[in-house]
Amino acid sequence: MTRFALTLEFDGTPFFGLQRQSHGPSVQQSIEDAIARITGETVTLQSAGRTDAGVHALAMRSHVDIEKPFDPFRLMAAINAQVRPDPVAVTACEVVPDDWHARFSCTGRRYLYRIANRRAPLTLQRDRAWHVAQPLHAEAMHRAAQALVGHHDFTTFRSVHCQAADPVKSLDLLDVEKVGDEIHIHAAARSFLHHQVRSMVGCLKLVGAGTWPEARMAEALAARDRGALGLNAPPHGLYFVEATYPEG
Amino acid sequence: MTRFALTLEFDGTPFFGLQRQSHGPSVQQSIEDAIARITGETVTLQSAGRTDAGVHALAMRSHVDIEKPFDPFRLMAAINAQVRPDPVAVTACEVVPDDWHARFSCTGRRYLYRIANRRAPLTLQRDRAWHVAQPLHAEAMHRAAQALVGHHDFTTFRSVHCQAADPVKSLDLLDVEKVGDEIHIHAAARSFLHHQVRSMVGCLKLVGAGTWPEARMAEALAARDRGALGLNAPPHGLYFVEATYPEG
Repeated sequence: MTRFALTLEFDGTPFFGLQRQSHGPSVQQSIEDAIARITGETVTLQSAGRTDAGVHALAMRSHVDIEKPFDPFRLMAAINAQVRPDPVAVTACEVVPDDWHARFSCTGRRYLYRIANRRAPLTLQRDRAWHVAQPLHAEAMHRAAQALVGHHDFTTFRSVHCQAADPVKSLDLLDVEKVGDEIHIHAAARSFLHHQVRSMVGCLKLVGAGTWPEARMAEALAARDRGALGLNAPPHGLYFVEATYPEG
Repeated sequence: MTRFALTLEFDGTPFFGLQRQSHGPSVQQSIEDAIARITGETVTLQSAGRTDAGVHALAMRSHVDIEKPFDPFRLMAAINAQVRPDPVAVTACEVVPDDWHARFSCTGRRYLYRIANRRAPLTLQRDRAWHVAQPLHAEAMHRAAQALVGHHDFTTFRSVHCQAADPVKSLDLLDVEKVGDEIHIHAAARSFLHHQVRSMVGCLKLVGAGTWPEARMAEALAARDRGALGLNAPPHGLYFVEATYPEG
């Protein structure tokens, strides 16, 4: 048995999410089915994150265990050939120790959220960014975001379906920057609660539009109450950007 | 009668081109039909360029003449509402003099061609860039490209369907740069022949891959023969970026 770490890029638009679903296509099914056709083996893809339907990934990290010996480069090429036409690609593949786990060994996760802040509807960026026509104040959003950085109870910013035992998380970074007519929100933490990034972004949008004063972000956090959430941002602006692991 | 200049952004993927076609959807038809529903008038969209099926635009410039008086901002919003779900948007709209012509007044056109130069298939950039798996040498491409800059007979780089009276054109700029795992080719001229950018890019790709020595670009140009063309790049990497007009 060999454990292969895969780096995955995917367009989340046609998928019901990364995790296998009984009711529709998933990234996990696409990759697992491709490997089954290549190896004849039934494998289970383990991944650093569990992205929702419509959420994209630039570099998700996953792993699979395969009995037959394979050169990692050939395995990558074979998976990429087999997953067609699904919009998912293996961009890197390497052999890792048997105790390396894409999810449990991961010590850092990074997301990007893209808001297209312009009046005109989206064309080339449709399904790639959240379209917000109302002008947003990026500096105010960045200032308000800083209230969330640190070790907090994020119950307000957590889906009711979240299965994490503990709503307390350490948010390492929540930066807001204006890039042309887009607003980019960068979030980094060891781990996130379900819907945490989208919920934080939704509230930041309210601050950017002037609907919420900046101070309301800290109040929402302190409330520790999902009812204090202003807005959950849609999935299609969200990108899983990076998973980090201890050296070696 | 009022002449409105429109700035158009579109994803060329579902269109048979910018110009109206009898056999499939076009950007022109989408905009003209939208205006007909808004005004009850039959208008003809005139544009700075005539892009092929699959080619995109970041800021195409066009104009229409409308009898009924309209506020430009309201006209833009109405067209954007009516063209849905087609991936085309009016990003600017202004009243221009009756003798201003999107095509004939245009004194400069600028294109971008994107090559995604990586091994893995494309996901988020599918239909947005030309996927070339073989490593390309961007510096060699840039050097070879300079042989095409200037006033030349571009017969080699011209479609057999090109209707221009004269194959002699002045190419102002042909720059090749590496941007992450992409290669961007920037082309600017007063005007281009049909397929000129795609034909130049196709040959530059052969230079980048080492199939052509750099000097062969000048030889292909000097041949003034379509038979000397190495390769025509596919449409989906091409973007119409900008049209320029004399001041005032």
